[in-house]
Amino acid sequence: MSVIALDLGGTKLAYALFASDGTLLHRGSSPLPSERGEAVGVLMVDTVRALMKRQPPTDPITGVGVGVPGIYRSRSRTVWAPNIPGWEDYPLWETLRDVDSAIEIIIDSDRACCIMGEVWQGAAQGCRDAIFITVGTGIGAGILVEGRVLRGAADISGAIGWMALDRPYRKDYDPCGCFEHYASGDGIAKTARSLLSANPGYGGALGALPLEELTAHHVFAAYQRGDPMAKQALGHAIQLWGMATANLVSIFNPEKVIFGGGVFGPAAVLLERIRAEATQWAQPISMQQVQLDVAALGTDAGLYGAAYLVFNAGKNT
Amino acid sequence: MSVIALDLGGTKLAYALFASDGTLLHRGSSPLPSERGEAVGVLMVDTVRALMKRQPPTDPITGVGVGVPGIYRSRSRTVWAPNIPGWEDYPLWETLRDVDSAIEIIIDSDRACCIMGEVWQGAAQGCRDAIFITVGTGIGAGILVEGRVLRGAADISGAIGWMALDRPYRKDYDPCGCFEHYASGDGIAKTARSLLSANPGYGGALGALPLEELTAHHVFAAYQRGDPMAKQALGHAIQLWGMATANLVSIFNPEKVIFGGGVFGPAAVLLERIRAEATQWAQPISMQQVQLDVAALGTDAGLYGAAYLVFNAGKNT
Repeated sequence: MSVIALDLGGTKLAYALFASDGTLLHRGSSPLPSERGEAVGVLMVDTVRALMKRQPPTDPITGVGVGVPGIYRSRSRTVWAPNIPGWEDYPLWETLRDVDSAIEIIIDSDRACCIMGEVWQGAAQGCRDAIFITVGTGIGAGILVEGRVLRGAADISGAIGWMALDRPYRKDYDPCGCFEHYASGDGIAKTARSLLSANPGYGGALGALPLEELTAHHVFAAYQRGDPMAKQALGHAIQLWGMATANLVSIFNPEKVIFGGGVFGPAAVLLERIRAEATQWAQPISMQQVQLDVAALGTDAGLYGAAYLVFNAGKNT
Repeated sequence: MSVIALDLGGTKLAYALFASDGTLLHRGSSPLPSERGEAVGVLMVDTVRALMKRQPPTDPITGVGVGVPGIYRSRSRTVWAPNIPGWEDYPLWETLRDVDSAIEIIIDSDRACCIMGEVWQGAAQGCRDAIFITVGTGIGAGILVEGRVLRGAADISGAIGWMALDRPYRKDYDPCGCFEHYASGDGIAKTARSLLSANPGYGGALGALPLEELTAHHVFAAYQRGDPMAKQALGHAIQLWGMATANLVSIFNPEKVIFGGGVFGPAAVLLERIRAEATQWAQPISMQQVQLDVAALGTDAGLYGAAYLVFNAGKNT
């Protein structure tokens, strides 16, 4: 069996072909069409067809695994993707199924794919209880419980960006939650901008940039050059990443917590400081036993996990 | 089949006999022997023997379900109960098994028993994803995921008393965690005592008590009489209960969150205020869908759950 993996993001579609032994044979990506909506479904169908054509008749595609940036409603087999206009309840399974009804289609959230990818060929190999924390533009978690992905009553579990970590409540948290407000890529940039606004004459590396252009990327670059304000901005994020990690460790008693997404990446160097912060807060025995790690598959974790949805199908009951 | 349920606490052993249809036939409780340690195991064995003797030969006991105040290590079948000296790794399963090897012995934590009791005959009937928050002297949670109790890698899951909810870290949180420090029964008394210490001339209902005698019970009684300082102390607890509920809702997307333990009880009247606080913080769709409720079985949830461990055995695979 060969398997197609699709990892849909807010701006591009990554795709890959996996051999039956789990080797990645071929990969690529396409920008999303500017119309979005139905056009994204068409792009995905075209991508699957093109990859199928590459295959020799002796080794046909047996399944397509898909990770989506939002919620996969497993009962209705539809997708809610907040960053893709028109995908409030998009019938993705049906759309892909129409390509070839003999091929198995399995869809899940990108968070679920990330943890499954790391279980398959990454840092969570051998784990039955593990958590993947994605920190990019937003924050979410893929959570493995006894070898199965935690779904929740309506497939919305793992929305850890909404974690309450600093009272009292502030209106700033309304759009995306307290944890995400401070510690996502956008949150880090926001913190740095507000520190700079409060210190208009600031002369460090960060101060040289126009405020509105500042991103988390700049904050990390300035941190590497020893910029004090970048240190302060990341100090906030480290505290919140540590508290959130502690909460997940106390609640789940997992074997591993894995950090991934665009911010880890550069934040990987902060792992020991995150561990020190988490150790203050968490249930002490669980904290002593858990391993913290950075995604071994980097930003490919979701692509591998999408393939593993198919390879793993039927193994968990 | 008739089943014996044992609910072991830090100071007493509650026990009951259940008929095969789930009816509670007989119940009682015994104070723990002052020596604790092995003597507690002897009391449990004696209790099982005495209940077995009551049964007619036509309806023998087929199983014993036990809830323990701490951690049940399912692999070694031993118990760690921090409030029972000598029970760091007590071989409870083996001890009870020696009574009659034909009887099935099933043991789990009191938190696991509470949620299972409510699933069986209480407020979580029909739920596959539900959470029981116990607030008494301490705080913990029994968490049901797809019909199974969440265990974690080393059976320590649900230690939500350690939840980080208010930065920065304070040394006060060392013994039992941030959430439990503020919002357990002991935490409420502590908050009230520190408010009173800061206002030595306070004349309200709470002020009439010697500081060292003040318990959560007094704070609730004063709250019912409209005492402003009791309102303030419980305001803190409501905020933290709401934040913790929000975090569990965002992480698990459960159908129900149920509050029990000695404090709910009197805190049941505060449920709407807890909901309002949680609604500010939590993932909005999950929060809209979840039901918050108070334990229908009251402080018997753990006893019912202990029986259900046996009735339910083998049903979940």
